[in-house]
Order: sequence, then C-alpha cells, then structure tokens
Amino acid sequence: MAGDQLLVRRASSGDQIRNFATVSSSLLPTLGITIDDSYPRLKKYIIAPYDRRYRWWQVFLVVLVIYSAWASPFELAFEKVEFGPLLVIDLIIDAFFVIDIVVTFFVAYLDSSSYLLVDDHKKIATRYLTRPWFVMDVASTVPFQIIYRIVTGKSNGGSIFGFINLLRLWRLRRVSNLFSRLEKDIRFSYFWTRYLKLICVTLFAVHSAGCMYYWIAVHYKIKKQTWIGSQVADFEDRSIWLGYTYAMYWSITTLTTVGYGDLHAENNYEKLFNIFFMLFNIGLTSYLIGNMTNLIVHGATRTFIMRDTIHEVSRYSSKNRLPESIREQMMAHLQLKFKTVELQQDQVLADLPKAIRSSIAQHLFQRTVELAYLFRGVSHDFIIQLVSEMKAEYFPPKVEIILQNEIPTDFYIIVSGEVDVITYKNGTEKF
Amino acid sequence: MAGDQLLVRRASSGDQIRNFATVSSSLLPTLGITIDDSYPRLKKYIIAPYDRRYRWWQVFLVVLVIYSAWASPFELAFEKVEFGPLLVIDLIIDAFFVIDIVVTFFVAYLDSSSYLLVDDHKKIATRYLTRPWFVMDVASTVPFQIIYRIVTGKSNGGSIFGFINLLRLWRLRRVSNLFSRLEKDIRFSYFWTRYLKLICVTLFAVHSAGCMYYWIAVHYKIKKQTWIGSQVADFEDRSIWLGYTYAMYWSITTLTTVGYGDLHAENNYEKLFNIFFMLFNIGLTSYLIGNMTNLIVHGATRTFIMRDTIHEVSRYSSKNRLPESIREQMMAHLQLKFKTVELQQDQVLADLPKAIRSSIAQHLFQRTVELAYLFRGVSHDFIIQLVSEMKAEYFPPKVEIILQNEIPTDFYIIVSGEVDVITYKNGTEKF
Amino acid sequence: MAGDQLLVRRASSGDQIRNFATVSSSLLPTLGITIDDSYPRLKKYIIAPYDRRYRWWQVFLVVLVIYSAWASPFELAFEKVEFGPLLVIDLIIDAFFVIDIVVTFFVAYLDSSSYLLVDDHKKIATRYLTRPWFVMDVASTVPFQIIYRIVTGKSNGGSIFGFINLLRLWRLRRVSNLFSRLEKDIRFSYFWTRYLKLICVTLFAVHSAGCMYYWIAVHYKIKKQTWIGSQVADFEDRSIWLGYTYAMYWSITTLTTVGYGDLHAENNYEKLFNIFFMLFNIGLTSYLIGNMTNLIVHGATRTFIMRDTIHEVSRYSSKNRLPESIREQMMAHLQLKFKTVELQQDQVLADLPKAIRSSIAQHLFQRTVELAYLFRGVSHDFIIQLVSEMKAEYFPPKVEIILQNEIPTDFYIIVSGEVDVITYKNGTEKF
Amino acid sequence: MAGDQLLVRRASSGDQIRNFATVSSSLLPTLGITIDDSYPRLKKYIIAPYDRRYRWWQVFLVVLVIYSAWASPFELAFEKVEFGPLLVIDLIIDAFFVIDIVVTFFVAYLDSSSYLLVDDHKKIATRYLTRPWFVMDVASTVPFQIIYRIVTGKSNGGSIFGFINLLRLWRLRRVSNLFSRLEKDIRFSYFWTRYLKLICVTLFAVHSAGCMYYWIAVHYKIKKQTWIGSQVADFEDRSIWLGYTYAMYWSITTLTTVGYGDLHAENNYEKLFNIFFMLFNIGLTSYLIGNMTNLIVHGATRTFIMRDTIHEVSRYSSKNRLPESIREQMMAHLQLKFKTVELQQDQVLADLPKAIRSSIAQHLFQRTVELAYLFRGVSHDFIIQLVSEMKAEYFPPKVEIILQNEIPTDFYIIVSGEVDVITYKNGTEKF
Repeated sequence: MAGDQLLVRRASSGDQIRNFATVSSSLLPTLGITIDDSYPRLKKYIIAPYDRRYRWWQVFLVVLVIYSAWASPFELAFEKVEFGPLLVIDLIIDAFFVIDIVVTFFVAYLDSSSYLLVDDHKKIATRYLTRPWFVMDVASTVPFQIIYRIVTGKSNGGSIFGFINLLRLWRLRRVSNLFSRLEKDIRFSYFWTRYLKLICVTLFAVHSAGCMYYWIAVHYKIKKQTWIGSQVADFEDRSIWLGYTYAMYWSITTLTTVGYGDLHAENNYEKLFNIFFMLFNIGLTSYLIGNMTNLIVHGATRTFIMRDTIHEVSRYSSKNRLPESIREQMMAHLQLKFKTVELQQDQVLADLPKAIRSSIAQHLFQRTVELAYLFRGVSHDFIIQLVSEMKAEYFPPKVEIILQNEIPTDFYIIVSGEVDVITYKNGTEKF
Repeated sequence: MAGDQLLVRRASSGDQIRNFATVSSSLLPTLGITIDDSYPRLKKYIIAPYDRRYRWWQVFLVVLVIYSAWASPFELAFEKVEFGPLLVIDLIIDAFFVIDIVVTFFVAYLDSSSYLLVDDHKKIATRYLTRPWFVMDVASTVPFQIIYRIVTGKSNGGSIFGFINLLRLWRLRRVSNLFSRLEKDIRFSYFWTRYLKLICVTLFAVHSAGCMYYWIAVHYKIKKQTWIGSQVADFEDRSIWLGYTYAMYWSITTLTTVGYGDLHAENNYEKLFNIFFMLFNIGLTSYLIGNMTNLIVHGATRTFIMRDTIHEVSRYSSKNRLPESIREQMMAHLQLKFKTVELQQDQVLADLPKAIRSSIAQHLFQRTVELAYLFRGVSHDFIIQLVSEMKAEYFPPKVEIILQNEIPTDFYIIVSGEVDVITYKNGTEKF
Repeated sequence: MAGDQLLVRRASSGDQIRNFATVSSSLLPTLGITIDDSYPRLKKYIIAPYDRRYRWWQVFLVVLVIYSAWASPFELAFEKVEFGPLLVIDLIIDAFFVIDIVVTFFVAYLDSSSYLLVDDHKKIATRYLTRPWFVMDVASTVPFQIIYRIVTGKSNGGSIFGFINLLRLWRLRRVSNLFSRLEKDIRFSYFWTRYLKLICVTLFAVHSAGCMYYWIAVHYKIKKQTWIGSQVADFEDRSIWLGYTYAMYWSITTLTTVGYGDLHAENNYEKLFNIFFMLFNIGLTSYLIGNMTNLIVHGATRTFIMRDTIHEVSRYSSKNRLPESIREQMMAHLQLKFKTVELQQDQVLADLPKAIRSSIAQHLFQRTVELAYLFRGVSHDFIIQLVSEMKAEYFPPKVEIILQNEIPTDFYIIVSGEVDVITYKNGTEKF
Repeated sequence: MAGDQLLVRRASSGDQIRNFATVSSSLLPTLGITIDDSYPRLKKYIIAPYDRRYRWWQVFLVVLVIYSAWASPFELAFEKVEFGPLLVIDLIIDAFFVIDIVVTFFVAYLDSSSYLLVDDHKKIATRYLTRPWFVMDVASTVPFQIIYRIVTGKSNGGSIFGFINLLRLWRLRRVSNLFSRLEKDIRFSYFWTRYLKLICVTLFAVHSAGCMYYWIAVHYKIKKQTWIGSQVADFEDRSIWLGYTYAMYWSITTLTTVGYGDLHAENNYEKLFNIFFMLFNIGLTSYLIGNMTNLIVHGATRTFIMRDTIHEVSRYSSKNRLPESIREQMMAHLQLKFKTVELQQDQVLADLPKAIRSSIAQHLFQRTVELAYLFRGVSHDFIIQLVSEMKAEYFPPKVEIILQNEIPTDFYIIVSGEVDVITYKNGTEKF
C-alpha cells in the first residue's frame, strides 16, 4: 500500500554478517569507541582480546615491562645490587608474566585472513605454541639464576645471568604494541603519543648503553685504563649512585654528540663498544629529527593553508584593484570559514554512504523545513526528499547574499539572523 | 512591480545576528584587518579584548615579560646584584603586572561555546578567579623578598627567593600567546615570526641553563671541583661579566653539541644537571631543525610546481616531436601564468559564496561589456547576468587564440592588445 | 551475424608491436614480476640484460665489489698485510671482473631512444668501447702491482700501488646501480632498501676516512706528532687490530660529530684531511637525516589521513549535535573503510583502461548477478553490460542502508549478510 | 564567403600589447629560452637587462665577487699580506666594479607595477641614485686604504681598513641574485644549483669565522692566552699557511659541532665570538638539513607514487582473488604508464589554452586520421574538429582492448601494432 512507509534498516547479526560484526567490534576500540563487551558471544572461559579487563591487565603488564627494561641492564652492570631487594621484585614480576602466559591460552584471537574471532581452545593453544614468541615468553620468564643457586648452591653465577636476564627485554615488544595501538587511537593526541615514544626509546638507549659501558669498565683487568677508572680510581668501591651518574653522563654526552671528552674510551674494548653505540646513535638521532619534522610539518599544514588562501585573495584584490567593500566581504567570509568549518569536512562527508548522509540531513534540516511557512501542509515524503539536498551556509554580517538582477539559482531559509531587503526604483540605482 | 529592482543585501545587526557579528569582529584582528572599535557596544567600564589600546598594553607587557625572563635566572645565579638597581626595576615591573591583574577584571571575554563576548562584571570576575592562572598571576607578582625583609629585618634570604622569583617565568605564556597570534596574522611574515620565536626559545634555554649551572658552581662546597672553579679558581671574586660569559659559553657549547670539553661537569650535581639539559637539547635541536625544514619545504613548493610543470611540458614536446612554434607558445603561456597568476587563485575564488563572486565579476567586467559595441542598448539585467559568467584571460604575444575551423565555444572581448585575423582562401591554406 | 560474438583481444607480437614488447619485457623485472626468458628472441650467444642467470651473476659481482670496497682502503693503510692472503683474494676477484668485461660484449642493451633491445655484436662492442666506463673497467682490473713486481723484481712499490688500487672503487657504481634498481622493485621494502643503502654509505665513508687517516700517520716523519702516535708511541709495531680500531674510533667519532678530542689532528696534514672529512660529513649527515625524514613522513601519511578524517567527523558530529546513533554509524563506516579498503584504490582503478576494468567487474560480479533470482533468463549480453557498472560496498552491522521515503537511486544485491526491513504504518513513524 | 577560412592568430606587437611583449621577453630567459635580442627596441645607448652580453658581464662580476668574499676576511686576519700582490688584485677588481656602477646608468629596468621596461636615462639614474644600494655600491668600491696612504703618507692604518674592506661583502648580494635566478632556470638542475649554493654559504661562513677568530688572537695582548697561542706559542712568526690551516680547522670543527677541544676559546673575547658563531651555526646547520630534506623529499615523490600505486593494485588483486591474467594486464599497464608517461602530464596539458591544445592535437593526429580508410574524402573541417577530441593511448602486448558484449563507447585507430579479433560462436564462449 502506498501509505505504508518502508525503512530498510540495520543489518541484523546473522551467521553471515557475523564476519563484519567481529571485524568492526574488534577494531572499534582502536578508534576510541567503547563497545559493549557482550557483543559476540564467545565460548566459556574464553576472553575476547578487546575485553576491557583484559586490556587493563595488558596495560598493567606494560608498566611491569618498563620496570624490567630499566632493571635488566642495571642489574647486569651493578652486580652487587642483584641479590638485594631488586631480585625479589624481579621474581614477583616474573610471576605476573607466568600468569600472563597461562592467560594467553584463554584469549581468543583474530584470524588474519577471515577477520573472525577464533575462540576454540585447541586452535588458540596450537597457534600460541607454534609461534616463536611462546618460546621467548617462557625463556624471558624462567628465573635461571634462582634455579642455578638452588641446584649448585653457589650464590652468584657471574655476569652470565646478567646477560640471560637481558632476555627480559623481549617483553619490550608489548610496549611497542601499546604505542602502535595508541597512535591509532583517536582519544589520544598523536603528537604526545609519538613524543612519549621517542622519549622512551631515547631513555632506554641511554640507560642500556651506560650500563653496558660500566659493565665493560668493571670487567677490564687494568682499572686505570678504563673510561671511569682513569677519572675515579676506586670507582668500584664508591657508591652505585656515583657509578650510575657517570655512566648516564657518558652515555648521554655521546648520544647527543656533545662529546666533552672528559670521559672517553681508554681501551680497545671500550672503543669498539663506543663505535657501535655511535653508529646506532646516527640512526636514533635522525629518527628523532625525522619524527619531529613530521609532526611539525603536519601541525603547520592548517596554518599554511589558511595563510596561503588569504594571501592569494589579498593579492587578487590588489592586483584587480577591487573596492574595499568587496575585499572586506571576502576576508570576512574566509575568516568565518577557517574558524567554524574544518578544512576537509565537505570531502569527508561526501565519502560517507548515502543513507548516513540522508540521516544527517534529516537531523539537521527536517524540523527547520517543517516549521517554514512555505512548507506547511506539504507531504512528509516531499520534505524528506527536499532536506537531503540542503546545505548549511554561514554568512558574516554586512555581506551581500543575493545581488540585484542576478540569476536566482539558490533557495535560502534563514535559520538565525536577519537580512535587509534593499529595493531600488528602476532608474535610481546607485551602483 | 516588475520595474522595481531588488537587492538583498547586508545582514543587519539584530539580536540573533549578534552572534556572528561578535565572532567575526573578535577574529578579524588576527587576519590583519583593523576594525572600528565602536562595533559591539559593551557595558560601561568594560574593555573589549580586541580594543586597540588594550592590545598595545599587552604588547608593552610582553616587553616587560622578556626582561623578566632574562632577569629572573640571572638574579638567581648572581645573587650579589640582586639588591642593586635590578631590584628596583623588578619592583616597577611587578607594579605593572599588578595593574594588569586589576585591568583583567574589566576585560570582556569570548565565550568558547557560544562565540559571544561576555561583558558581565560578575561573570568576568568569576571566570578569572576560578581559573588557575589567577593564582599564578598573583604568585608571580607578589614581591616575597621585600616582604621577607620587612618582616624579618634580614637583608637576604638566600637562594630561596631566587627560586621564588622563577615564578615570574609564568609570565612567559604571554609571549607564547603573542607568537601564536602573530603566526596567524597575515600582516606579518610567517617565516620571520617563526624564526624570531625559535631564536627567542633558544636564547632563553641557553640563558637559563647557563645561570642554573653557575648557581650550582656557587653553591658547591669545594670550589676547585666545579666546572668553572677548575679553570678560574677565584671565580666568585671576579666580575659578573666573566662569570656570565663562562656560563653562556658553556651553555651554548652544550646546546649546539660542540662540546669542546674545556668546561665540563666536575662533580655529580653538575653531571646530573648536564644530563637533563642535554636530554632537553635533543628535543630543542630537533624542534629547530623540524621547523626550519617545514619553512623551507613550504617555501620551495611554488618553485617545484613551476619547474615540474615546465619540465613535463618540455618532455612532452620532445617526446611527441612537436614543432618549435607550438613549444614556444606553450612555454610563453606557462611563463605568463607563473608570473602573473597565483597558483591556487582559481580554487580559492571558486570557494567564495556566489554573491561575492558576482560582485567581483561586476566590478571587473561590467564597464568593459557596457562599452563594447555589441552590447550597446542591451538591458542592464542582461549585462549583469552576462558578466557573472565571464573570465579574464591573458595571452602572450604571437600566440594563436582561435584556430581555423575549430568549433567555436568561447566568446572573447579584447580589453587590451591587438589580434591579427589571418584569412586563407579555401584552397591556399598552408598548414 | 548478430549471434556471433566478438572479442577484440590481445595485441599480437608483430613487427611493429615488437617495440612495446621489448619495453615492457625489459622493464617488468623492476616491478617484481618474473618474466619467461624466451620472450624476445635474441641473436645467438647474446644474453638479454634481464636474463635470470645474468642477474644472479651481477648480484654475485656486487658481493665481490663490497669486498673490494673494504679491502682497497684497508690495504693502502696497512701495507704490511698487502702481500699476505688478501693479495691472493684480490687477484681472484680481479679475475672475475675480467670475465665480466668479456661477458659484457655479449649482453644486449636497451637503446635509450627507441626502447628496443639491441642484440647486434658490432653495436654492442662499439657502444661499450666508446664509453668511458670500458677504460675504467679495465684500469680497475689490471693488477699493476703484480706486473710491477714481475718487471722490476722489487717486492713493494710503496704507497703508489695502494692508491692505484683505489681505482677498484670505480666498481662501486655497480652497488649504486643495484640499489637504484631495488628501490623500484616492488618485491623489496623501500624503507629497508633505503636504510641498507644509507648504512652502506656511512660504513664506507667511516672505513675509508679511517684508513686514509692512518695512512697519513704512518707516512708523517715525526711519529709523536701524529694523531695516533701522540697516544700510542709505538703504534706501527702494535697489531693491525689496534691500529684499525683506533682509526675506526677516530673516524666515527668525527662523523657523528661526537668529537671527544682524545684523538685529534696533531699536524697540518692531518688538520687538512680533517677539514675535508668534516665538510663531507655535513653533507652526509644531512643526507642521512633527510632520507630518514622522508621515510618517516611517507610512513605516517596513512595514519595522519585516518586520524584527520575521524577527527573531522567527530568534530562535525559534536558541532551539529548529531544523535549518538548517527555518530556511531559514521565511525563504524570509517573503520571499515580504513581497515579493508586501501586509501587511493578507487583512484588507481579509475585510471586503468576500460577493458581491464570490465574484466575485473566481470570476474567479481558476473556469477553473483547470474545467480540472482531477478536476473534468471536475462540475456548474457545484458548481464555483461550490467556488471561493468557495479561496485562492491561493505556495510558495518546496525547501519541504515536505505532510509524510508528516500529517493531510490541505487540497486543493491546482498552478497553476504542480512538486512532488516522495518515497515511503519503511515501515522506511527517514530523518527 | 563560406569557402574562405579564417584563422585568428598572433597578437601583433602594437602599443597596447607592448606590455605583454616586454613582460614575457624579460621573463623568458629565466625559463631557459634564448630570445632574439632585437625584440623590444630600446633607446640608444640603453642596454636591456636580459641582453646576452650584459648577462655575461654580470656572471664575470660574480666571479670577481667570489674572490672578494674570500680575500676581504683573509686580508683582515693576515695583515702582513695586505700590501703584497693581493692589494693589486683588489684594485683591479675595484676598477671593474667602478665600470659596473657606470654601466648601471645605461641599463633599462623593469617597472615592478606596470611590468614595462623603462629605458629613459633620467628615470634610470633617479632610480639608481635614490636607492640605498648606490651608496653601498660606491662605499664598497672606494679604495679607502690607498687614499689614506696618499693623504697621510703612512703605510698602514691598522685593522680599521680591514674592517672597511668588509664593505666589499656587500657585493655578495650579486651571488645571491644569481642563485635565485639559476633556481628558476629550467636549464640547470635545481638540485645541483641548490647544493652549490649551500656549499658556498658553508664555505664562506667557515672562512669568515676562521679569519675573524685569527684576528682576535693576533690582537689579544697575552699571546699565551689565545686559542692558537696556547698551542703554537710563536704563531705570529710562523707561515700564513699554518695560521690559516689552524683557523680553518677550528672554524670547521665548531661549525660541524665536532668540537674536539684541542683548539678552544681561551679568553673572554674569544668566548664571546664563539658564542655568536655557535648561535649562527644552529641556524646554518638546520638550514642545510632542511634544504637537503626538501630535495630528498621532492626527489622521492615519483618513486613513492609509483610504488604506492603498484602496491594498491597488488593488494586489490590478492584481496579479490583476481585471476593471474587480469593481474598481469594491470601490472603491464602500470609499467607502461610509469615508464612512458609523465605523472602530471594530463593535468598540465588540460591547463593549457584551447588553441594550443588544438594545435597539438592537429599536429599529432591530423595525418593519422586523414590517412585512415574510413575518413577518405571527409571534409577538412570535420577532421580538424574530430582530432581535437582524440587522445593517444598505449597498450602493452597481450592486453584485452575491447571485451565481447561490452557497450562500445570508444573508437580506436591503430597507429602502430596489431590486434587479434577473436570471434566466438554464440554457444561456445569459454569465459
């Protein structure tokens, strides 16, 4: 029947549509939308990867990773602190990562080809066990040093365990993952996310290099011929604080290429390490500068577009000697545009599917049109078809909207504000 | 009546349009247009934020801020000058900022959601008092040192007041605000504004770090183990001039990463400070380089477009072995285009509202068309509708404008210059 | 006859089309497609430049070149190793390059103006012999030192042969060629190719400068006044290992502009060399930073587009106070778009010739349309003409596809998923 | 008469068109086109600024300027060489610049508002005399030192004349002008022009700073406390060669921020100069890096577009599981496109005026169409109108051009190559 109205709406969640449902659900969080967790029903004891609690658990682990990243090189360099409180903290942290390994067996994963969430216990286990990162996860969690002590009864196995502890740096991939997720998350500023990442990378490089350099000094036979020993002869008996400051100072002096030269490589091993650190620094420095440039260039785009546009209009006005009144109208229009409308908004909206654009138009204009005197009593269908062609326009004050004698092509409904209708008699126009 | 002509013009300043009026008024200055101050009528004793005199007052305060930014770290480092003439200057400057705090209660503000100027005394006061910057404004203005001297009778409270004076650096946000306004102001070159900003930031960083470093040297117990004391044993008894030069020299040697090493951190505190300064410098240096790159890339855009275009045309000509005459016409056209017409002018004009474009067309072409022999006696309406479709075109000399036998699609009116009409008999064409 | 169907297909490889055949064949490899070698039939004993075996031979030579690039400066600096095993390796490598010179006479070349493969023996020989690189190829291959030894009977001709050996660096152009080919090869990541190239350039610069600097020290008369002699007085009697480490350490300390100062130019010759090395380093460093910036800027483009688009939509929603349901639909659509569709895919496909686009459309949609109930029994021609106008569209779940009362302009065939058709009685719509 | 054909061609050089004639004439050289000098007839004894001989004179002067730029700081630092041969050379060079000042009175100039060449003697003289650069030109040419010697009879006026000689650096604006002209000249590579400019700027900065620094050392009272005196006590009695090498070495060590520290500021004046030089260097270094980045980013644009396009097509193929044959056709098409057609060629051609596009189309297609069997005997007018709509298309071999049953929309004329027409009986199609 003609009177019945039809609305084709909402793809329902059937079997086939499940595919899309899971895609978008799993992806939604990265764009800053909170989703209701109940959406795709998973098997019992299986956690969705975008489950809110699981996400917080992941963030908590990242905090632990950051501690590990700091502690591992530190413990290697300053062996005497190893069996102090730090070791206990290390064990507790390792315990959390053991829990995470177990938990991973219960977390559904997104199949990369079908975009479907896989919640089958067997498949999850197979996938995790056959990938290299299971081995690495385990290797970076086993407390080899404790086992060694229990087995051999000796209290310290030397530097070897310090190096084995560096396996924990494998966990840093979690930080890397977190950052690449944050960069895509609209809720966080890209600028600050990237900035924080660069600071973290820099600090980690500085810290690691400093600790390694100190380790070389500690293990070189002639203490006088080490970078620190040539300055502080009894550096091994001095406080960790002093050693760490010296190491950091040297490390950052080298990274920033300041290179005062008060601390410098004294023996061949130090020179070799220094060579590799400096080579690495070229890359790091250009990476930092490149990122900074990228952020600045992107940040300045809008200002440049605005300035260039106004500059062009200004040049055009003066070249064609346009009267001041037209020039002012142009400027007023441009200002309104740059202050209220985003630059590429029209383009973005034009790319949306038709149904969404129609919804937006209905929401924005339907009431206005229905209230307009001219459209009283007009059929509902007509109004809906009309609004989908409407656009909002803003005019600054004192601006001409329709010129006299102009061919009329647009139809305006005034939503807010007033217009003067200036009527000239035929012969008295004063143009 | 049909003979009456109608001009819909100028949105008048009613209640509803007030919104737009205030928006554009308040924004106009940033784009380099001087507005008549009388525009929106504000309450008595209320100053508009874009009032010319208030703006000059702000600029005057920025000059004082620059002095403060220099003096605060300087006074901290070189305490002996503190109670000399500098202190008097400080007090005078503080007085000006007291005045500004009072004045702020009488300055209308722009509501960020409604874009309306708020000129209500109570609202202005509430807004200012509830924001953190009121507290900071007051804290950075109170002369704690004088009060301390009056209360305790002691002449000097040590470094503590030096650090309290650093609160004055809070005022630097004014400089930051000024620069971000200048960057959007079309009257000033973006390049030089940005450049000046970078120089200011660099100089301030150098000055502050130098002063802080000197302060550390002065307060370290063993003078021989300080960065300056190891070079100039009696540095505290030497002139301020010498100390300041050494501090600046060290600071800038570090910032630029030259790092000669003649002056370097001798004790742990200096090393620590140095570490933070160097870390900060990585950021500053890449910020400087990034900004410079941004400016250069933007500045070269036009040249690249011109060169690429000509290069393409040149390649196309030689690939298709076009005759020299066509090639020369293409080149002549491109030169004329790049010398006289701005690159994106067409795009910018197309984005203007129709009424403005019509005004421009009328201004540019109406007289020309009315004077043309062909349009003598034609009705005024027709001419106005005609001009809105016209465009100006420039041709270099010796260029073909309409080819023989071509399908005619354009109609030209010659404004300036001459054309040769070359007529061939049917059989004698020499192509 | 109307029943006969016609397919204009495949430009056959005739004489005239030979031109294109060879163009695309010779170019195909750079875009990562393996071509069947049999394609253009070349003369006997002539090898096509894109022959697989010839390519591998080229790659093998590049490996040898890399060795040469390392060995030549090294042998110059550390003359005592020259007549050891390195010399034998050098001779073997030279032999391979002799073979390559001979082989080059049998490799067809691509004429740069006609894009035709030239397989004429005489032309190939003439071209190779008349170009400067034949002379250089020969000069860089002749073992002058051996000849000198055989002729004069002396075992060592001093540094002169070390410098002559530097002629071998001419071979580096092969590495340069390889990299410029890899950069255009879609099979390899541009990022890593470029990165590897930068590392190679840096390492070669460091190595060469270090060796040259060591050579200066060895040949300066007063050993105490050389950069290394002032530190290690008997450096010439110490191991090559020590000398090389010192040279590398100095070289990289200078390149990275760390400049500790523990090793620095002591005499005028060293100062001069240092000046030129540092000038070169300014260029190299900015080249490294520029390349890194370029890679980062390109890499971030996609993220910026995504973030900016979502940001615009988000701002538009909040500015117009769109209801949450519309906002969610917009976000869901954008996510689907950015996850499944490449950014410029539409543009790229639109630029393809019509026949290819039709082929793709037929492949994608023909089966779907034929299976659709509505098109049963419809003529084959009609379906083929229909599919060429079809497009695939993806909708996230819960999104409205056609609104009620909307003017219908599109026709949808559901390939996968379900839709709800919601019907309202005329008076009970709840919008 | 209808048979008469009409060709509107060539704007003749009348009075009004003079304007354009002179514009494009004067501008032509910058785009790399040689113009016949006879074009605009100037007054007697007046030289056009784009006269070939005048241009060469300018280039010759630039060579002299480069010498001056090197000699002025050098003579200041090493006063003892001042009255040697260099002084004679200086006088000769000054003589050439005196000639140039005279010549300038006879060179027409381009009025910046009307774009007309002004060849009036009086106007040229007025313009030159009233601009500041006449005063500077004269001041930088007068040999003050000779005059002083003649007047006072003393042989040397001390450093004062060295500083006055620095006025000659004013001439550097000629080098700056030359470079900005070269950058717009299509005949020269932008990359190398810019690169040369950067090298010149760097070398000049290094040279000037080194000379100034040496001057400070020479004029400081305690020689032991100068940067060079602390290393070479009798530096003033040593060769100029040694002094200059030391100065250059220090200067470039500082500019590149290597900062070994073997030569460093010893007294306050040196420290002060060093501070300003280092501050300047921050700017220079970021300018160098910014320029390099700009060149690299521009150079990589084409490769990125090519790689991205192919990458998109490749992804699209694999996502939609397109058959290998279609994929190969797409790749072959893309290769042909990127190898033979410039990227923005279509865009550039579309922006040309219609007459030029028609000329090109006639040149490219008229003969082809006239020779085609189908168009024998067709009227000349029709062919000319037809060709203006034609486009050249290239197809790689084995590519489908028209599919069976496709709606025909294009008409092809085969210029070179062959096509297979494959006909299927209605029932035996094998698609």
